[in-house]
Amino acid sequence: MLKVMDYEPTGLRILDQTLLPGRTQTVLLSSPADVARAISRLAVRGAPAIGVAAAYGLALAVDPRHSLRVAQRRLLAAAHLLKAARPTAVNLAWAVDRLMAEPSVQSATDTLALRRALERAAAAMEADDRRFGEAMAAHGADLLTGVRGILTHCNTGALATTGPGTALAVIMELWRRGERPAVYADETRPLLQGARLTSFELTEAGIAHQVLVDGAAAWLLAQGAVDAVIVGADRICKNGDVANKIGTYGLALSARAHHVPFYVAAPSSTFDASLADGNLIPIEQRDQNEVLSFAGRRVAASGASAWNPAFDVTPGAFVAGYITEVGVLHVENGMVQWPQTRTGPREATQP
Amino acid sequence: MLKVMDYEPTGLRILDQTLLPGRTQTVLLSSPADVARAISRLAVRGAPAIGVAAAYGLALAVDPRHSLRVAQRRLLAAAHLLKAARPTAVNLAWAVDRLMAEPSVQSATDTLALRRALERAAAAMEADDRRFGEAMAAHGADLLTGVRGILTHCNTGALATTGPGTALAVIMELWRRGERPAVYADETRPLLQGARLTSFELTEAGIAHQVLVDGAAAWLLAQGAVDAVIVGADRICKNGDVANKIGTYGLALSARAHHVPFYVAAPSSTFDASLADGNLIPIEQRDQNEVLSFAGRRVAASGASAWNPAFDVTPGAFVAGYITEVGVLHVENGMVQWPQTRTGPREATQP
Repeated sequence: MLKVMDYEPTGLRILDQTLLPGRTQTVLLSSPADVARAISRLAVRGAPAIGVAAAYGLALAVDPRHSLRVAQRRLLAAAHLLKAARPTAVNLAWAVDRLMAEPSVQSATDTLALRRALERAAAAMEADDRRFGEAMAAHGADLLTGVRGILTHCNTGALATTGPGTALAVIMELWRRGERPAVYADETRPLLQGARLTSFELTEAGIAHQVLVDGAAAWLLAQGAVDAVIVGADRICKNGDVANKIGTYGLALSARAHHVPFYVAAPSSTFDASLADGNLIPIEQRDQNEVLSFAGRRVAASGASAWNPAFDVTPGAFVAGYITEVGVLHVENGMVQWPQTRTGPREATQP
Repeated sequence: MLKVMDYEPTGLRILDQTLLPGRTQTVLLSSPADVARAISRLAVRGAPAIGVAAAYGLALAVDPRHSLRVAQRRLLAAAHLLKAARPTAVNLAWAVDRLMAEPSVQSATDTLALRRALERAAAAMEADDRRFGEAMAAHGADLLTGVRGILTHCNTGALATTGPGTALAVIMELWRRGERPAVYADETRPLLQGARLTSFELTEAGIAHQVLVDGAAAWLLAQGAVDAVIVGADRICKNGDVANKIGTYGLALSARAHHVPFYVAAPSSTFDASLADGNLIPIEQRDQNEVLSFAGRRVAASGASAWNPAFDVTPGAFVAGYITEVGVLHVENGMVQWPQTRTGPREATQP
């Protein structure tokens, strides 16, 4: 399994995912600005992974040679910069806010202690991400035992997190348990995370699968080949509305039309209790050349323009279940229902 | 307007559409095998256009130096070959059968007369294609006057026919009449006919438009930006089920979920009265490399495979109207209703 990121004394080394699967190349990010740029250009991507990357980015803001006052001022600027790198995935802002509110960070009395506190908190977040991924995989595999065909969208595996992933981790866990569903992956235009990354992860894991163009998903569902659709999420509102990679909403409509359950796998950090519904989620619009060109080569007519929202919003009513680290949740009375008793290190910050 | 094909004494000169919009290059096809290959590899494409190309391909089967018996045997072989070039668009088989049944073809008493009869019949079919395109454009524009936003899929313009087109011709006619709807074009993976060809035709015509990835169509509809969806067709069954470019069915599901009318524009030659419903339509499966590569470059992990149906089937119940050369038709009592009195040169062959 490729390591998405590695924190080193001199910076955060990340795998440049824009080059996969053709090239496996890492880049050393030595400042918060480097990290923000890597997040913006999708060199590191996936809601959980960009949260952890931003956390390490905060640590990089603190230069032990600076006074505590200067270091704190730079840290605050870095927090603003990192939160602004991408608007839709709430994990990014969540991770930054969480690190800034960490007692050991707030109480640091010298610059080195501040840096160490940030590094420790980022490492703890990375460890949580892995543990939560494993828990989601187990809950999801329990839920989906026996499915004969499963369809996913975008990339939600080890490349999207610092653990095994979210939706793709569920599929991988099914295989690890000996289940052999037919696995289908939408290619996920415009940036082809399905064809480039999901297919790459599945191939590495030896899992048979087929890639399809996003437009073919409805027809695949019409063939009766799919018993469950499972995707990740970038932000989930109080009422269960889900922002996720563009194409997810159309997929959910198709699943609904064919009475195929549509599941969302996401850790608690993806749930945003501050937003009542999906109308309030900021949707990132990206450069139109992502649609009009590919690999530096223009495919559309010169002079053409494109509409390129990176995400869409699927109503909570379309979601059969939310696979989280604490179990499978549902919407009742217009709200995602969390268990009353909770355990785990993030209890205090649960939405 | 680029000419899709031109019949010359030595063969059929076609525009190689696989190279558009980057290069405008023609190829001379001098045998039925050349024509069949050009149809298979989508150098000439679009249901009406491949019908006319196949008609000229039949004429090329007849070498005036051969005896009538040899010429007739070769003509029959060419008819089989051309009909097999692509399975889904019924216009192809329709055109070949129609030419073979032409009285002047059947009664030819020498080889040169046979060739001339085929050439004349093919030219008449081309002229019909143009006239019917103009009629569809007018009927469609009458129907859609006042729409503020319109979305189309694949390419259904001058490049898909030998006239102004089908669905795209309607959009062009609306603009010619001074209407200014927002025009949206799905890029249409895997072969990007929307981004490469539709956007090219719209740009040439000076019509403002935006390209979007196929997965974004549902989200565009959710924005309320589209009042009508209009597509072409490759085959329409007795009950109104429509085979069209992969992605059409998902688009129809999305349009239905948003109460946006979904129209199909197609000439009578696309209606196949011999098929009761869409389950009987042969769906072409194409090479998986069309999906695994993008613009000639491999994008998916090596070892990945793909599911690549070129078409899907949309139930007649989802279609608000069929825009044909004789007017806008509807499904009633489970069947497409044709007007009782019909005029026009193809009266005898109407389904």
